[in-house]
Amino acid sequence: MSRIDGRTPEQLRPVTIERGWSKHAEGSVLVSFGDTKVFCTASVTEGVPRWRKGSGEGWVTAEYSMLPRSTNTRGDRESVRGKIGGRTHEISRLIGRSLRAVIDFKALGENTIVLDCDVLQADGGTRTAAITGAYVALADAVEWARSHKLVKANRQPLTGTVGAVSVGIVDGVPLLDLCYEEDVRAETDMNVVCTGDGRFIEVQGTAEGQPFTRDELNGLLDLAVRGCGELDAAQRTALAAEL
Amino acid sequence: MSRIDGRTPEQLRPVTIERGWSKHAEGSVLVSFGDTKVFCTASVTEGVPRWRKGSGEGWVTAEYSMLPRSTNTRGDRESVRGKIGGRTHEISRLIGRSLRAVIDFKALGENTIVLDCDVLQADGGTRTAAITGAYVALADAVEWARSHKLVKANRQPLTGTVGAVSVGIVDGVPLLDLCYEEDVRAETDMNVVCTGDGRFIEVQGTAEGQPFTRDELNGLLDLAVRGCGELDAAQRTALAAEL
Amino acid sequence: MSRIDGRTPEQLRPVTIERGWSKHAEGSVLVSFGDTKVFCTASVTEGVPRWRKGSGEGWVTAEYSMLPRSTNTRGDRESVRGKIGGRTHEISRLIGRSLRAVIDFKALGENTIVLDCDVLQADGGTRTAAITGAYVALADAVEWARSHKLVKANRQPLTGTVGAVSVGIVDGVPLLDLCYEEDVRAETDMNVVCTGDGRFIEVQGTAEGQPFTRDELNGLLDLAVRGCGELDAAQRTALAAEL
Amino acid sequence: MSRIDGRTPEQLRPVTIERGWSKHAEGSVLVSFGDTKVFCTASVTEGVPRWRKGSGEGWVTAEYSMLPRSTNTRGDRESVRGKIGGRTHEISRLIGRSLRAVIDFKALGENTIVLDCDVLQADGGTRTAAITGAYVALADAVEWARSHKLVKANRQPLTGTVGAVSVGIVDGVPLLDLCYEEDVRAETDMNVVCTGDGRFIEVQGTAEGQPFTRDELNGLLDLAVRGCGELDAAQRTALAAEL
Amino acid sequence: MSRIDGRTPEQLRPVTIERGWSKHAEGSVLVSFGDTKVFCTASVTEGVPRWRKGSGEGWVTAEYSMLPRSTNTRGDRESVRGKIGGRTHEISRLIGRSLRAVIDFKALGENTIVLDCDVLQADGGTRTAAITGAYVALADAVEWARSHKLVKANRQPLTGTVGAVSVGIVDGVPLLDLCYEEDVRAETDMNVVCTGDGRFIEVQGTAEGQPFTRDELNGLLDLAVRGCGELDAAQRTALAAEL
Amino acid sequence: MSRIDGRTPEQLRPVTIERGWSKHAEGSVLVSFGDTKVFCTASVTEGVPRWRKGSGEGWVTAEYSMLPRSTNTRGDRESVRGKIGGRTHEISRLIGRSLRAVIDFKALGENTIVLDCDVLQADGGTRTAAITGAYVALADAVEWARSHKLVKANRQPLTGTVGAVSVGIVDGVPLLDLCYEEDVRAETDMNVVCTGDGRFIEVQGTAEGQPFTRDELNGLLDLAVRGCGELDAAQRTALAAEL
Repeated sequence: MSRIDGRTPEQLRPVTIERGWSKHAEGSVLVSFGDTKVFCTASVTEGVPRWRKGSGEGWVTAEYSMLPRSTNTRGDRESVRGKIGGRTHEISRLIGRSLRAVIDFKALGENTIVLDCDVLQADGGTRTAAITGAYVALADAVEWARSHKLVKANRQPLTGTVGAVSVGIVDGVPLLDLCYEEDVRAETDMNVVCTGDGRFIEVQGTAEGQPFTRDELNGLLDLAVRGCGELDAAQRTALAAEL
Repeated sequence: MSRIDGRTPEQLRPVTIERGWSKHAEGSVLVSFGDTKVFCTASVTEGVPRWRKGSGEGWVTAEYSMLPRSTNTRGDRESVRGKIGGRTHEISRLIGRSLRAVIDFKALGENTIVLDCDVLQADGGTRTAAITGAYVALADAVEWARSHKLVKANRQPLTGTVGAVSVGIVDGVPLLDLCYEEDVRAETDMNVVCTGDGRFIEVQGTAEGQPFTRDELNGLLDLAVRGCGELDAAQRTALAAEL
Repeated sequence: MSRIDGRTPEQLRPVTIERGWSKHAEGSVLVSFGDTKVFCTASVTEGVPRWRKGSGEGWVTAEYSMLPRSTNTRGDRESVRGKIGGRTHEISRLIGRSLRAVIDFKALGENTIVLDCDVLQADGGTRTAAITGAYVALADAVEWARSHKLVKANRQPLTGTVGAVSVGIVDGVPLLDLCYEEDVRAETDMNVVCTGDGRFIEVQGTAEGQPFTRDELNGLLDLAVRGCGELDAAQRTALAAEL
Repeated sequence: MSRIDGRTPEQLRPVTIERGWSKHAEGSVLVSFGDTKVFCTASVTEGVPRWRKGSGEGWVTAEYSMLPRSTNTRGDRESVRGKIGGRTHEISRLIGRSLRAVIDFKALGENTIVLDCDVLQADGGTRTAAITGAYVALADAVEWARSHKLVKANRQPLTGTVGAVSVGIVDGVPLLDLCYEEDVRAETDMNVVCTGDGRFIEVQGTAEGQPFTRDELNGLLDLAVRGCGELDAAQRTALAAEL
Repeated sequence: MSRIDGRTPEQLRPVTIERGWSKHAEGSVLVSFGDTKVFCTASVTEGVPRWRKGSGEGWVTAEYSMLPRSTNTRGDRESVRGKIGGRTHEISRLIGRSLRAVIDFKALGENTIVLDCDVLQADGGTRTAAITGAYVALADAVEWARSHKLVKANRQPLTGTVGAVSVGIVDGVPLLDLCYEEDVRAETDMNVVCTGDGRFIEVQGTAEGQPFTRDELNGLLDLAVRGCGELDAAQRTALAAEL
Repeated sequence: MSRIDGRTPEQLRPVTIERGWSKHAEGSVLVSFGDTKVFCTASVTEGVPRWRKGSGEGWVTAEYSMLPRSTNTRGDRESVRGKIGGRTHEISRLIGRSLRAVIDFKALGENTIVLDCDVLQADGGTRTAAITGAYVALADAVEWARSHKLVKANRQPLTGTVGAVSVGIVDGVPLLDLCYEEDVRAETDMNVVCTGDGRFIEVQGTAEGQPFTRDELNGLLDLAVRGCGELDAAQRTALAAEL
């Protein structure tokens, strides 16, 4: 049984990772998972937030946002409403945690890297595309910091690779990398953040309809690990190219 | 090897669930997981939010908050800061989703139940205690709604039971129901929301230090399911008593 | 003529003052005036707000809040609305002023004590219960500060005792310590904050219906002084007990 | 012993009440108590807030604000800070309550009158000047509503007169109508709102230093009633003039 | 063809500039353009905003606001709404820029002058009246700073004069200094800020209906320059008088 | 004398206008003026804001925003700060006014079009690029509304074309279409919004240093009209292509 867009259940959408999309940012990527497009920039600044000063350690944080018309119907701007919604907060925190998991803060020294992930077009999986793209922007920013002597050349702040993918059960079938239409119909929805070597940084599964069983959970994790492996390859290919 | 408070790794803290703690609310519970104490009220109102009007279906939502001095050092009030933090948003959403998973909205009819979970004292596991206590307050509120004819007597909006517990890996050992001191030191931290029959409503695992392996994940899930089973028993005991 | 709850006009509701209700706070009290229950914590921190630095003097301030379902119908959370209402501001300021009236700031030294008064259940008189309970939490916090050498052992920052009670005229009869149902019907409503020796710290009388005469004012003040005397005794008893 | 500005203890500052200061508002007054100048407008609109619709009764409310440089050192604008301070809230509420005390809401019908009291120059007693001036603006607005048939000609929404004055104890001497310099030094500070016939609408006394005795309270009330009598005369004179 | 108020097309409304309207502010002016009345204060403080510290240069900024009932129908207070509207922001920025254009920041030294322009009554042209009045308040404040030695006596921070006027096309006729009724009907609306010698500091023209031609633009600029010349004379007269 | 980037004074930067950049929006354009890139979407919804209901007329409005790292150093997100800055407000209003100038609201009927202009990369002239691009997105959205029968086929809501360009005086030389580096150094800075036939919709000139003369103003207007003519041609070319 094929999916809405003709994929097999265990198939990712076409993934593209374009580096160098901004002339200002120290790292920048336009990542797409099918029709989902996220613009990720990594900004390096010397110094750290007040609560971390004098620690000798750096900091990495992230902000996620959707352009008002990235979705099918226009949403209000959070700046206009004057407050950030819970979903935005939640995803920003997830992206930040995921990337901090592969950073050696001592090696980074007292520098801060902010990842901005702005969704230009949404079709499901915006948070997983954001993490996957932000990792590449982060890698470029770390390299920039090393070449500009903010980080000592013999230190490597990056300790691993990170990618993320959604999985879910739709009509009883576990699917990899849900598009929006599948996401809406999913009985169970899970976002998984993995390192390149198949270990877990974050697992977030939610029963949207019926609670899910241990077997279903295992099936979804299998799919997710497989998908993250492919994303890892795509990231490596992108980073191997000349900027 | 025993834990800070003398427990074995697979042992819950003492759990108490006191019903009827408010004379105003339709359901109310003071729940404690060891030194963590959360006051949960369930408020029933006729009608539903605007976006759900005319659907014939009800709504359940939750708000979580910590009293400023529920923690070791006093935190700012979110009302004074003028905005709700990301963590508060995230937990409120988690509690709401968890309880909605056991509600039949059609059976509830166009009524709304709001769960307020206010942490009076925090010692780790406030969100899991909140879910566990809120379920009992919700059950009382649903019963109130049925006895007051807001819900038809032959309909049962409650479709199952929900409990939640934290698990984590500390010094390489998987532990059930972390207290604050353990939580701070955990390499991996997971919150699991289960139905009484051992299926999953929500699984949220986070690597705080090293990424975790599939085996570690499995070990944590085993512990969590076991803990949720014990919480289910405690909830049943509490609900069986005269109010 | 007896009152709704069978009291005589000059009778307080049952008053309970439980100390040590929090394991974190330097002073903590659960105070009840009948069905009105307020949880008061006193938090001690070294240092003072910026505008007071270098003065050698301490500071005491208070924040009052009602849990959303402390009342008969659920109120919105002020953190969710994003602003603090006028009534909350007004009461927080009243509590702070009342307690500052019995503090010698020089003796306190450059330390700050914050009183948090969170209403768990409201049935009239929440602000007066809050002041009465907060005084006891403050006394414990001051003692903590002395025993922890933040305050010199030979200095006593506490210069007196404070209690508060509401009085009002209902159906032409002056009543002490109004419950909610009486408060709603009162023609005149007055909150009086007294020292233990019967002097006034704050007098706030408001005509809800007809303006009140000088004689009526005098009658209310007589009742209030009498009530504050009884509260003073209850506070002394509570503080005399082992913590 | 004479005061800073040469007055006797029981003497008001020069009071002026200029009506018709705005071409737009239905009632408008520039009131001055010595150097304290407050611009009061009364705005009449048909209809009432949602919670009062269909009641057949009107509503009166007030907003108080200080221009940033009405004081000796410039204060931040509350619109710029994005929130209203506790003092502003408190005074707005006091003004509203004071004026509602002399309004028959049934006679007013479903109309709303908003009093805006903006302090152009502050020298102590801004809230009492605001109440005194707002009453006159309110009287003009009520007359406007009657002449424009919003209120039936045979109904009189205004049931009395209101004025307000501050009193306080400075260096042990009770003084009437404190200027800023006296206010700062006062041991006890009281604001009293009276009807023209000497009854009380609001009494708010605060010990700034030592608690005050019943005798001191009585002395201050005597002074305040006397001052309010003089303000009543000034209001009558102002209202007797051609607009 | 004469205008609503009998003026010729190239005639200003009566202009009054009253200095010394505040006893607190270092410069203060009540300016009126016909029925438009704006109260302008200039507040001098030592020091500059953080981003300018150590530069040796001063700063001038402005805040504009309308009293709620300065207009025909009462508007909400921006402090109550909790945010400043776009129009307020825009005008505050315009006033600040206009006055900074005639300040030598080096001569001013590290001092800050804040212009507060509060509209007491609005009848069109509030921003131009505000600029014209604020200039006079600024001039007085600069003189105050020199006489109080904040600015060296041999330095003159004021490098020119500034005035502003609105012009517009109504029924095809270019008019100077539009009152509200004309402003509402204008097809093109322009605000022009000039120095006393007829050069431009700011030109803001907007087509409200049809786009305007180069010829129409030229005609409006001619009128504006003429009007600013008259305002310059009025400012000089006001400043020549004894304060 | 050639410019930083080799252009002549009266030369625009390379302009590109890519339509169809979003699969969701009814009109969408990625516009670039050199390195300045703005993503413009036009969202059509049936209905109008409350204040316009029943008028039979439509509405067009705009929101402008900069991505945090669109600039050389990262700026705070306005959603995080909780308020929109003055500059953002000002530009959003300018874009909205400019586009409303070429809309026949009666022909549009009770439909609303919102233009979102998000700056992906900034290098001067973001507001003029936004207006120029938004016009094309608007034209596509209007066409969409006609083909989807929201607008009657025989009505044409679009009454003209709009483009905008910046001009300024740098080192005494009038330049067209300033890049950021030129903008920073400009003595006078002007943004001009024109129709395709060379009439003015908006003229906003500001002296950043010295006031400017009438001759300088004329020179700048000449340049701007010329630039807008070229932009008009680019817009026509883009719109002539198949979508």
